[in-house]
Amino acid sequence: MNRGFAQTEYETRLARAQKMMAAHDLSALLLTTEAEIRYFTGFLTRFWESPSRPWYLVVPAFGKPIAVIPSIGAALMAQTWITDIRSWRAPDPVDDGVSLLADTLNEVAGVGRIGVPSGRESYLRVPQADWGWIKSATAGEFVPDHGITARLHAVKSDAEIAKVETACAIAGRAFARVPEIAGQGVALSTVFRDFQRLLLQEGADWVPYLAGGADRDGYGDVISPAGDIPLANGDVLMLDTGAVFDGYFCDFDRNFAIGPPSDIARSAHARLTEAVDAAAEIARPGATAAQLFCAMDQIVTNGAGGSDAGRLGHGLGMQLTEGLSLILGDHTPLVPGMILTLEPGIETAEGRIMVHEEDVVITQTGCRFLSPRAGPEMTVIT
Amino acid sequence: MNRGFAQTEYETRLARAQKMMAAHDLSALLLTTEAEIRYFTGFLTRFWESPSRPWYLVVPAFGKPIAVIPSIGAALMAQTWITDIRSWRAPDPVDDGVSLLADTLNEVAGVGRIGVPSGRESYLRVPQADWGWIKSATAGEFVPDHGITARLHAVKSDAEIAKVETACAIAGRAFARVPEIAGQGVALSTVFRDFQRLLLQEGADWVPYLAGGADRDGYGDVISPAGDIPLANGDVLMLDTGAVFDGYFCDFDRNFAIGPPSDIARSAHARLTEAVDAAAEIARPGATAAQLFCAMDQIVTNGAGGSDAGRLGHGLGMQLTEGLSLILGDHTPLVPGMILTLEPGIETAEGRIMVHEEDVVITQTGCRFLSPRAGPEMTVIT
Repeated sequence: MNRGFAQTEYETRLARAQKMMAAHDLSALLLTTEAEIRYFTGFLTRFWESPSRPWYLVVPAFGKPIAVIPSIGAALMAQTWITDIRSWRAPDPVDDGVSLLADTLNEVAGVGRIGVPSGRESYLRVPQADWGWIKSATAGEFVPDHGITARLHAVKSDAEIAKVETACAIAGRAFARVPEIAGQGVALSTVFRDFQRLLLQEGADWVPYLAGGADRDGYGDVISPAGDIPLANGDVLMLDTGAVFDGYFCDFDRNFAIGPPSDIARSAHARLTEAVDAAAEIARPGATAAQLFCAMDQIVTNGAGGSDAGRLGHGLGMQLTEGLSLILGDHTPLVPGMILTLEPGIETAEGRIMVHEEDVVITQTGCRFLSPRAGPEMTVIT
Repeated sequence: MNRGFAQTEYETRLARAQKMMAAHDLSALLLTTEAEIRYFTGFLTRFWESPSRPWYLVVPAFGKPIAVIPSIGAALMAQTWITDIRSWRAPDPVDDGVSLLADTLNEVAGVGRIGVPSGRESYLRVPQADWGWIKSATAGEFVPDHGITARLHAVKSDAEIAKVETACAIAGRAFARVPEIAGQGVALSTVFRDFQRLLLQEGADWVPYLAGGADRDGYGDVISPAGDIPLANGDVLMLDTGAVFDGYFCDFDRNFAIGPPSDIARSAHARLTEAVDAAAEIARPGATAAQLFCAMDQIVTNGAGGSDAGRLGHGLGMQLTEGLSLILGDHTPLVPGMILTLEPGIETAEGRIMVHEEDVVITQTGCRFLSPRAGPEMTVIT
């Protein structure tokens, strides 16, 4: 599968952004985080793991985005479609790009309004001290971006969908090989390590996320690191991965029975897949996130209205989780091109849960599974 | 090697923090990022990959820290030494923990001063809209934390140093096996994928960072993802990894000659190790970051004062890069327990560089290598 995108992909994203910016009277957008900057540029690097340097992208009301970035990234940014690249030698303890950014904003936006992502999930990847200085050195007025960046990210192009689908296929092949690495007596930490190796072997570029758990008929939570306790007969093993292909995530899990599953575990798994089916059945343009939540919640809690996980699915794409939440309070209508996870959880015993997750894309008429859909029966590892 | 830390480790960290807080008249610290929160709690999870939920830790002037976190994390936080855990079902589109946090801050700090990390590398992992609300709902005054968190992170305990040293040993074993996976005709992207597998096999928990490059006598930059071009005789292959053991990073690289190296590459590599030696020679308590920079810069640029990489090394620990920078303008004095990378770069041709990196810890009398020190000769892969 091809890497990167055709330049038209970025031109389309920019045109959509500028149309929304005009509607909200914004002279520029100021972006500071990995996904925000990559969306408009294609700038793909793992260097964001280093918190030391700020990176800025200015999206003007007309014309192409301007990168205001550390010089260490200038060569890579020059390989993208961005042509106006302004850089400084970072880190600079005196002026770490602040003047360069303020000059750029003043040139582009004058005294106009500059939109900054401000809603759910967003943050300013800028030291507070610098942010104060940027505000005072910039003539324009910083205002919320009216959700423009979030709305753009939420609806994927066919090329983006293909990348998530590739990531899902990679993880699907790795999940199919779990019986090679897991079984009675193998420590969960060893399974985690080996499953990451399988993901890489099957084509993942890297594995930013792996969680899971294992215990009798379920697990205590789904965000803990793996311990060294060996798997035992009667355990349910769950692995949940966010593997990346070309900058796009999959995010789904699989449950495995170590030895023949108990009736409790078998029944819980069947109900989880039933809940996924119920949500997929109604997932189509115009249905809301809350409706999908209710369809699943009815099955996993008899309609109690949720659990401590907080939601039963979420958007997915350039980030492991992004955009809408499948909760009672999110009335976002689904739109073709949205990618969602369907992620019901069920309590199997006091303090013990099972979770199942699949990835789907909203189509013109319904939804299509991107992850290789699991059936009601768990794979048994003997 | 043991996982986690003894509780005394956290008690010591807290006592040091509270002493500094008293000196700056701070009634509380408000922390929002992964490293900040893990430092005081031991809360270790890869779930931070998800940007959807805010997490807060309040460090009071007296008593233990208070976690104000999404309910999905409450079970894992309860396994740490933290006992006051206040949680809400996140994401909540109406009030995503803001009221719970403001109530906690008002209870702990009253109208006092609340320190927030504000300097280099720090950011507030909070949506701007929520931050405005938090400020208005809190009686206290938010002020910069006077660098307290950064100063605490900069000086490592023996237990922390042992974890970085373990991560370094893991990466050292993986680097020693690179001839198994690299050679003429192998695509760089395949080398990247297989090197991550080696790191996991050798004991890394996960591999948050891998960069590198390969080209004749050097590479264009050191932050790009790997392409599919096969390695050729005459290439220098560089791999630079930040692998994690129990939440602590190594960060060093190795250069390999694909076939016999040219005089240019051989000489550049010898000068790079000579530069590392020069910095290590003077690295001791009281020496400054700038002095280490100058010792290396003298050798790699004849004292030109730097390059586009921006620095010749940095602090290391819970993050891939943290703390001081080896640049002309950073006069931070070294202190026993600081872990640094020594990372000189050299231009080998127009637009082409070679970089070498080792990890050292400052001791009472000098420094000690944590990474298995490379010699002046590159490993040749035939």
